[in-house]
Amino acid sequence: MAQTFIAQEFTTFYYATFDGDRSALRNLYRPTSMLSFEGSPVMGVDAIVEKLVNLPFKQVAHRVATQDAQPSSPSVASIIVSVTGQLIVDDSEHPLNFSQVFHLVPDDTGYYVLNDIFRLNYG
Amino acid sequence: MAQTFIAQEFTTFYYATFDGDRSALRNLYRPTSMLSFEGSPVMGVDAIVEKLVNLPFKQVAHRVATQDAQPSSPSVASIIVSVTGQLIVDDSEHPLNFSQVFHLVPDDTGYYVLNDIFRLNYG
Repeated sequence: MAQTFIAQEFTTFYYATFDGDRSALRNLYRPTSMLSFEGSPVMGVDAIVEKLVNLPFKQVAHRVATQDAQPSSPSVASIIVSVTGQLIVDDSEHPLNFSQVFHLVPDDTGYYVLNDIFRLNYG
Repeated sequence: MAQTFIAQEFTTFYYATFDGDRSALRNLYRPTSMLSFEGSPVMGVDAIVEKLVNLPFKQVAHRVATQDAQPSSPSVASIIVSVTGQLIVDDSEHPLNFSQVFHLVPDDTGYYVLNDIFRLNYG
């Protein structure tokens, strides 16, 4: 199914970029994009990139454990992607479980992120 | 914000119904609704209800830890809701972490669930 392939390509690119150079995630967002990071909501490209770049860690690595994708509209090729996995921050020995939801919406240039919701999962 | 209120009302109702009588979740789905449960996708009211009713536990209780909501469309009052929490199954002493995403779409009768993605989070 197309949404599964697109979702896999997206998450691979997203987390490689996040773990390499967070400022390069800018191209994935638009003025209407929303990010909720640990319950803190921001909107728009500049606010989202500022939030991501200023997160209080230097090195980070995401390990994706599961990803699921579904089409989110009968009329547009938009996709909801749900990811769970682990986050390793600054060489900590203790990975953190996370879950993240992306809503990918097509435009002239490909897909952008309209919705982005990130949460750490404490056991 | 309206989506936060609607999301809270929805998740309270959804998990109370799930934990009480799963078959009564039928009214929340439509023929186009999709459920991915632990990576297994089904579509449509009957298939979704059959999946939920036949899950291999009798008693279940959901504890919601976090919920985030964002509008998912500039033109329709649809909402993406991301929930994390714990699941207690058949009086087990070991709660399971879960994450679940709902895409709520309005119709004549209120909101229905177009997308539903459920995952357990193993640490």
